[in-house]
Amino acid sequence: MIDPRFFTNVGPFTLGEIAERLGGTLSDGAPRDLMVTDLAMLDDARETEIAMFGDRRYRAAFANTKAGVVVTNRELAANPIGGDTHLIIVEKPRNALAEIAWLFYPKTEEALGFDDEGRAAALANGARVADTARVGRNTSIGARTVIGAGAVIGHGVIIGEDCVIGPSSTVGFAILGNRVQIYTNAVVGAQGFGFVPVAQGLRRVPQLGRTLIGDDVEIGANSAVDRGTIGDTIIGPGCAIDNLVQIGHNVRMGRSSIVCGQAGISGSVEIGNGVIIGGAGRVADHVKVGDGAQLGGGGGAIQDIEPGAIMAGLPAIPIRDWHRQSIGLARMFNRVKKKD
Amino acid sequence: MIDPRFFTNVGPFTLGEIAERLGGTLSDGAPRDLMVTDLAMLDDARETEIAMFGDRRYRAAFANTKAGVVVTNRELAANPIGGDTHLIIVEKPRNALAEIAWLFYPKTEEALGFDDEGRAAALANGARVADTARVGRNTSIGARTVIGAGAVIGHGVIIGEDCVIGPSSTVGFAILGNRVQIYTNAVVGAQGFGFVPVAQGLRRVPQLGRTLIGDDVEIGANSAVDRGTIGDTIIGPGCAIDNLVQIGHNVRMGRSSIVCGQAGISGSVEIGNGVIIGGAGRVADHVKVGDGAQLGGGGGAIQDIEPGAIMAGLPAIPIRDWHRQSIGLARMFNRVKKKD
Amino acid sequence: MIDPRFFTNVGPFTLGEIAERLGGTLSDGAPRDLMVTDLAMLDDARETEIAMFGDRRYRAAFANTKAGVVVTNRELAANPIGGDTHLIIVEKPRNALAEIAWLFYPKTEEALGFDDEGRAAALANGARVADTARVGRNTSIGARTVIGAGAVIGHGVIIGEDCVIGPSSTVGFAILGNRVQIYTNAVVGAQGFGFVPVAQGLRRVPQLGRTLIGDDVEIGANSAVDRGTIGDTIIGPGCAIDNLVQIGHNVRMGRSSIVCGQAGISGSVEIGNGVIIGGAGRVADHVKVGDGAQLGGGGGAIQDIEPGAIMAGLPAIPIRDWHRQSIGLARMFNRVKKKD
Repeated sequence: MIDPRFFTNVGPFTLGEIAERLGGTLSDGAPRDLMVTDLAMLDDARETEIAMFGDRRYRAAFANTKAGVVVTNRELAANPIGGDTHLIIVEKPRNALAEIAWLFYPKTEEALGFDDEGRAAALANGARVADTARVGRNTSIGARTVIGAGAVIGHGVIIGEDCVIGPSSTVGFAILGNRVQIYTNAVVGAQGFGFVPVAQGLRRVPQLGRTLIGDDVEIGANSAVDRGTIGDTIIGPGCAIDNLVQIGHNVRMGRSSIVCGQAGISGSVEIGNGVIIGGAGRVADHVKVGDGAQLGGGGGAIQDIEPGAIMAGLPAIPIRDWHRQSIGLARMFNRVKKKD
Repeated sequence: MIDPRFFTNVGPFTLGEIAERLGGTLSDGAPRDLMVTDLAMLDDARETEIAMFGDRRYRAAFANTKAGVVVTNRELAANPIGGDTHLIIVEKPRNALAEIAWLFYPKTEEALGFDDEGRAAALANGARVADTARVGRNTSIGARTVIGAGAVIGHGVIIGEDCVIGPSSTVGFAILGNRVQIYTNAVVGAQGFGFVPVAQGLRRVPQLGRTLIGDDVEIGANSAVDRGTIGDTIIGPGCAIDNLVQIGHNVRMGRSSIVCGQAGISGSVEIGNGVIIGGAGRVADHVKVGDGAQLGGGGGAIQDIEPGAIMAGLPAIPIRDWHRQSIGLARMFNRVKKKD
Repeated sequence: MIDPRFFTNVGPFTLGEIAERLGGTLSDGAPRDLMVTDLAMLDDARETEIAMFGDRRYRAAFANTKAGVVVTNRELAANPIGGDTHLIIVEKPRNALAEIAWLFYPKTEEALGFDDEGRAAALANGARVADTARVGRNTSIGARTVIGAGAVIGHGVIIGEDCVIGPSSTVGFAILGNRVQIYTNAVVGAQGFGFVPVAQGLRRVPQLGRTLIGDDVEIGANSAVDRGTIGDTIIGPGCAIDNLVQIGHNVRMGRSSIVCGQAGISGSVEIGNGVIIGGAGRVADHVKVGDGAQLGGGGGAIQDIEPGAIMAGLPAIPIRDWHRQSIGLARMFNRVKKKD
């Protein structure tokens, strides 16, 4: 279910309407007049909701989904599925999901700062709000939280106590804990980078998820944390994110992990507790980084990292191997060899 | 010719004045009293304009230029040139161009937001403009375009219909199509990074070009697209640019190409249609990337990429070779060898 | 000594109070009632001040310090020290320094733009200030300096003449020379990324230094320059810093050095004069880069770079060796070999 605090659902639609819109085929016995109320992820979806299964990696979620309807392709539909779920078979499930999202949510209002209806409540709550900041409607801002000049708080946002929202930063589609620090020009809840290829070029995938930020998190200057596509981007309590960092949609970070300057965490990455991502380190989409693991500066992880492992290089390998390769290559190819 | 919408030309100057200012030597028969009206690129320049030839790569443009005057050095002057072009011979043509630019355009007014004269016309046109945004004089903003809090639209800018200009973003020296989305804190039309070395250090090269953005382009949060030095930076229709991306001066991108988060496209790069540049991928200056080519995340292209090629690594090589190297190196140097 | 322009010291405290707060052991004969007035770096500290010695690399500074008190661990305390310095022995000196910083400076007021008390003086001085900009109290802004829309100048900041402070940029805890250009959305004086590990996760290290920027410096759009932790981040005159660059705390750059787009300079790096750091180049913390050295685009320096050296790759090696490795690897592993 998409959070109605942030997004306005123009549904429901019948299963028949949806299948027609997608040009899809219904599975046997699917009732065309079933009311579909919303979209959701496979593992969150309820009986009146529609989810998408477009990648084998998620076949366990497909097997256990409670979704009333799942859109998938013919090949993936052969995977086991339990319960009363009906299927819509299409050629390109990801494209179909984008169309379903546009159907239910034709208009997303980005955090644009037209609305300052939340200022009075924030002040009454004991927050401070600079005069050039804008606090949207239906927000909740905790006591002693400070919102700097030019900051924009989008509608529905919840911010805890003792937070600092830096000048010219923007927070939208987000729920923040206590003592969170968002520095200058940071963007929390930006629209993630989601497109599907279509005949004419690229089709936007609406981004209907949220950003959830735990207590005591810091997010550095000029960094960006995208909100989830469906479901949430989650930054666990005590995480420290440096300047110019990019955190993609649906990333999940545990507790007290560190992301150094200019690092990039791609979409759907899972980062454990106490992880350190070095400066300009990159983690490719869907990669899992185990508790206490480290990725050296400039390294690029394209496969999962075991808990406690220390990795470096592009592609990232164990740091000892990386050093061994560097030394070995120097011996093989370099004219002047250094003694150490 | 430099666009007078954005830049104020204090010329013309005579050829004699210019040669003297540069400490340059005129080619035989060059008329010192020729009125030079403006500067331009070799392939755009007209008979009353001056251009610069400072790099062998542009000798075809030199051979075909219609410029009335070209500033170059003795060595490059030996290249064939057609027509009635006069030459000014200097030691350092790039430095000379900077001086010519300063001569004609001593003062560039960056998009600073002092001026809100364009607001009334924008509103009359059916645009929405947040109260803390600033819309400069002589702008044109299309119907239903939304300009968020704290955004700054520089003088002369043209923005089409149904665009979204995010909070705290800045658009200057630019012409945007319809349905363009500029996200939070993005900077379109920033001054490119141009300097020439001089005895005392570095001398700024004025940036007198524009940024042209096609229909349906998206530019992500905290990204920067520099305007051209002379001539334009061009983002073709349907391109999608993610967060924290840098696009240098005079880059030209075709249709529906994708630039993922934190990637960097250096000055004068040419990117075709349907290209994908992965996260944190880099393309070095003047490199050409063919239609449908891909550069893997973190890769760095320092040579042209053929259409359809899939490249990875630094320097970028075909991705299969890159995988082969990674595996080969692991076999050679690593103590613990993985099975796959 | 911490600059009282920017930070408010709630001390002094006695040596006994401090040792107790840290759970530390005093060296023999240390007077518990000694008044400690402030904290400082080893090489700057005066007789009433406390400094920290936590890394062997700084043993020369320890030997020569004039600090009245130094906090260190048992092992490092064995290094030679001259004069009348008393020691507090703790397990983790860096953690102890954080606690001392919190003790003297319990509250840092970030540059948040609540305060516009400096506007009148700036205007009287001949500066221009956009209406949505904010200029804090006790600032000094030079003649003809222009402060764009939405910019925030923090309390105590000094800016010279003929500077341009771009829209939505923030300058705090900083002293700028003349003709400095800070572009759109840049952040000067951001809080550096300093944490120490504690049992419950991460503990913030207060950032109590400044950013000093010389004449004729340019800082590009969406870049961030952190202030010092204790002591200063220094950008020498004539340096040119491109877009989306990160400069860490306590970095020191000489004259006329260039940092290209998306490069990252980690904490405490020293960069000489006339250095060029290529696009997306990285310099690891505490590395020294000699005069006239160059680091190729995407390269990562993890060791000092000699003056005049030209380096590339990750880890950075001499560029000729890097080319040799690239060619050698292609010969060894790639199926299709290119002729050149």
